[in-house]
Amino acid sequence: MIITVSRQFGSGGREVGKRLADALNLDYYDKELVTQIAEHTDLNEGYVSSVLENGGFRHYAFTFGRSMPFATATPAPVTDVLVAQQKIIKAIGQKGNCVIVGRSADVILKDFKPFRIFVYAENEGKIARCRARAPEGENYTDKQMLRRFKEIDGGRKKLHDLLGTHPWGDKAGYDLMLNTTNINIKAIIPALAEYIKASVK
Amino acid sequence: MIITVSRQFGSGGREVGKRLADALNLDYYDKELVTQIAEHTDLNEGYVSSVLENGGFRHYAFTFGRSMPFATATPAPVTDVLVAQQKIIKAIGQKGNCVIVGRSADVILKDFKPFRIFVYAENEGKIARCRARAPEGENYTDKQMLRRFKEIDGGRKKLHDLLGTHPWGDKAGYDLMLNTTNINIKAIIPALAEYIKASVK
Repeated sequence: MIITVSRQFGSGGREVGKRLADALNLDYYDKELVTQIAEHTDLNEGYVSSVLENGGFRHYAFTFGRSMPFATATPAPVTDVLVAQQKIIKAIGQKGNCVIVGRSADVILKDFKPFRIFVYAENEGKIARCRARAPEGENYTDKQMLRRFKEIDGGRKKLHDLLGTHPWGDKAGYDLMLNTTNINIKAIIPALAEYIKASVK
Repeated sequence: MIITVSRQFGSGGREVGKRLADALNLDYYDKELVTQIAEHTDLNEGYVSSVLENGGFRHYAFTFGRSMPFATATPAPVTDVLVAQQKIIKAIGQKGNCVIVGRSADVILKDFKPFRIFVYAENEGKIARCRARAPEGENYTDKQMLRRFKEIDGGRKKLHDLLGTHPWGDKAGYDLMLNTTNINIKAIIPALAEYIKASVK
């Protein structure tokens, strides 16, 4: 079973993905991990496979809504990183039994027929979620946050539409789309896990 | 609890709605019933309330994928029917604890904060579903079916967009969007019911 989670920034997509991986006992990968691997300019097979063997972030302590603070080495050129990401995501797909959040894994792994989730929310829901997880002292206005959402999601859309046949966020490209505006993500996970199990049977 | 189901023609939306109503013990209404009531040119309060008291189609025998063959009386003017439909849907919403399929109930009942589902599928899935339920002897080509989907969904979109703020089928207007292309609807109903219960808590 392979589940891909695409998501609008601030919608709680990473939380959905991580909790789903826990509920279904699947390995968990997200943008941060895939990027970390890919940014090693000395990307080597041994390192990649050791990460895969450990099930991605499966055994890492995890804080929802925070990016992992990685010490990035010499940055590699963007296209190299994208190519490396694709390679890593394909290796993850080959291994199977996983949840992958972001990085257009839905498109990259389409031959594996993943269950493709899209997580979204209304702006008010995304702003509330971001405020709740903001570090102390951070104090963006609603307007600044909305501009940031647009920038980040614009980047995701570009990467996705470069590879995919359906536009990012268009229902035609997904099996299930969740609006998290008014929901407690933790509360819906058991039902969501059952829904997926019944779908992929 | 009020659940509205909007759907592409051929996606199995009525089946989702009826099975969900059964699983959650809710009254069930759909386009056929609402239209039947509204087309009575002598629409009277007594008739409407007797239908509501009986929980819509709750106690009717039900065949998935078939329209109920209603003997329509003198047809009323279209705008009269739409006005009457709105009135009926609001009365249904007032009563609560129901599933309503179609007729833009998601928009008409927005003040009741319904849980809004959109059901869709890829063309191949819709064609297969329609073929499986077609009466003997019916023999449309794929092309004819696709043209028909477009006509029917075009009508639904027009009615919806006349009343709503979000375009029909656009994720922003829904709480959950299900792609039924590869799923057995009956199998996902228990999980779907749990998802909704966990969401509206």
